[in-house]
Amino acid sequence: MNPLSLVRPCVAATEGYVPGEQPSDDQPVLKLNTNENPFAPPPVVMQALHDAINDTLRLYPEPTSRSVRQAAAAAFQLDADHVVVGNGSDDLLTMLMRTFIAPGDGVAAPDPSYTLYATLTRLQDGVFHAVPWQETLDLPIEPLLATGAKLMMIARPNAPTGHAVPLQQVSQLCTATSAIVVLDEAYADFADDNGLPLLSHHHNLVILRSFSKSLSLAGLRIGLGFLSAALAEQMHKVRDSYNLDRLAQVAAVAALQNLEQFQPAVQAIRTERHFLTLELRRRGFQVADSQANFVLATVPAGRRGGQEWCSDLKTLNILVRYFGHDPRLADKLRITVATHTEMLQLLAGIDRLLESN
Amino acid sequence: MNPLSLVRPCVAATEGYVPGEQPSDDQPVLKLNTNENPFAPPPVVMQALHDAINDTLRLYPEPTSRSVRQAAAAAFQLDADHVVVGNGSDDLLTMLMRTFIAPGDGVAAPDPSYTLYATLTRLQDGVFHAVPWQETLDLPIEPLLATGAKLMMIARPNAPTGHAVPLQQVSQLCTATSAIVVLDEAYADFADDNGLPLLSHHHNLVILRSFSKSLSLAGLRIGLGFLSAALAEQMHKVRDSYNLDRLAQVAAVAALQNLEQFQPAVQAIRTERHFLTLELRRRGFQVADSQANFVLATVPAGRRGGQEWCSDLKTLNILVRYFGHDPRLADKLRITVATHTEMLQLLAGIDRLLESN
Repeated sequence: MNPLSLVRPCVAATEGYVPGEQPSDDQPVLKLNTNENPFAPPPVVMQALHDAINDTLRLYPEPTSRSVRQAAAAAFQLDADHVVVGNGSDDLLTMLMRTFIAPGDGVAAPDPSYTLYATLTRLQDGVFHAVPWQETLDLPIEPLLATGAKLMMIARPNAPTGHAVPLQQVSQLCTATSAIVVLDEAYADFADDNGLPLLSHHHNLVILRSFSKSLSLAGLRIGLGFLSAALAEQMHKVRDSYNLDRLAQVAAVAALQNLEQFQPAVQAIRTERHFLTLELRRRGFQVADSQANFVLATVPAGRRGGQEWCSDLKTLNILVRYFGHDPRLADKLRITVATHTEMLQLLAGIDRLLESN
Repeated sequence: MNPLSLVRPCVAATEGYVPGEQPSDDQPVLKLNTNENPFAPPPVVMQALHDAINDTLRLYPEPTSRSVRQAAAAAFQLDADHVVVGNGSDDLLTMLMRTFIAPGDGVAAPDPSYTLYATLTRLQDGVFHAVPWQETLDLPIEPLLATGAKLMMIARPNAPTGHAVPLQQVSQLCTATSAIVVLDEAYADFADDNGLPLLSHHHNLVILRSFSKSLSLAGLRIGLGFLSAALAEQMHKVRDSYNLDRLAQVAAVAALQNLEQFQPAVQAIRTERHFLTLELRRRGFQVADSQANFVLATVPAGRRGGQEWCSDLKTLNILVRYFGHDPRLADKLRITVATHTEMLQLLAGIDRLLESN
């Protein structure tokens, strides 16, 4: 008997999630495809890491990342029991699926959004409900409720659209449903507001944060989940016993204790986001205002569609993200906002392609 | 509605895995409870880590840990496609569960063994079959087959018994079953032989290795899975897209490229294992020969049972592991083998307790 026949049908039938291209570090590319921060983490984080490289690496880390939960509690004014730490916020998404989703259970999300939600649902043998955003990009509350899903995933700001639904709509959804509402705030630090103030009002609300965007630590895999202590206790059961290594814990604490040091980079990115939006519009792209560290740009009419723009930019060593599997996104590029120099480099590349058209 | 009612019954009904106590680093304890290596990783690993603390931490790691798979392939003479890297080997155990176990599916293991197998099975809504070891501690092949399990977990050397079943019996099991046989070799480097030579003969065999024991890197969470390329492809789907962070990848590569530098520590531990075994026997403990970096010791007859020994040693700042939930282990302690100085410290503590009896 072929051992492959033992693979769960839901796994065998699902394509794995395909992350954006990660070129090797020595390739000279302008990397605008996976929304990393163009600025290095501040020296205080680097120093904490150097200091942690010692004999204690032979010992297991603290299982629950207690120091990280305590630092997060202090930074965000909540109790450490309301924090679960993930090996990246994707790890927290998997924990949510494993905690709540049995075969056939529903997971719903406005669509388009982060495609990992659908992949993780299918791997868990759940049923994914893609609920189109309203034309106004408001939260489709009634259609979400109609799915009967146990988990509702709201990315805010949303990827790849970059918009942030009004918090009041999130609150409305939490009140209207008995499902778990997951507010995925990976990009929240680039937005005008965030959902933390809602947490104490809704016991069915889970908020996720990532250290991979505003905190410049994508390489270390750190995510936070904020939720009720009772739900946290359940999540801890499915959490890998030692899911965050010692160095990631140290970096997370250093970052949380020095959040103000990340502000200049966040401000610079917001400034560049405005600059990039205007400059792309001047070149014939349609770009909606973004609340994240990327913009979604509809390419100008012409011989190049989204795919051609993506591949032609790649010939210039510029990587952007193209989601061609979704027809609604076929004429769009998702472009990470980076430094001013890098934005100028991107615009020069675009100009070169426009001229060669 | 209480959001807790949405938790999967299999999760709600399962106690989470309780790892051994991890005291904070500043507590002056002799830590012999979770089988860590008493020796620090070699300087080449430390230097590689220092060198990796740079701007690239802002970037995602290579998703599949390619450099680690390649270094493992070179070190163990197999193809990189046959390697899956885990955030610790526990992460690989979870991936195996998620790949193969649907609700009601069986997982079997000789008993007693690593208790996480049962916990992970229950969290996945599977059915765990604890199959008692034969009295000779041989592999209970027929009873394992009779369970009809899809996954069979064989820890070799086994925890907490410390024995390694003959490889030929593992091979027999692989031939006799169409289930996936997982040979968990977390402690293999301390044993006289290992199962790697079996890999090319059995397409249903998965071998797991850990960097937390012989390779002194418990703090960085690294595990390897060796298996057929076809099964690896399925496991990658359920693997978190970026499950190993940049620093763990760097440390793993440095360790794999310098395996010979870990040999002196492994040899020292084997020597101390012999010393500890004899010295414990001289004090009235029953200790079977161990192939791992711990011994399982039956406490001498007297007023102290296993639990009292464990707690009395703790008052002397000596941590050992006690598995009192299992009546067969109620009179036993699992003690990590460490440096000669530490073993003398342990024996002095034991002598003190014996005198005070």
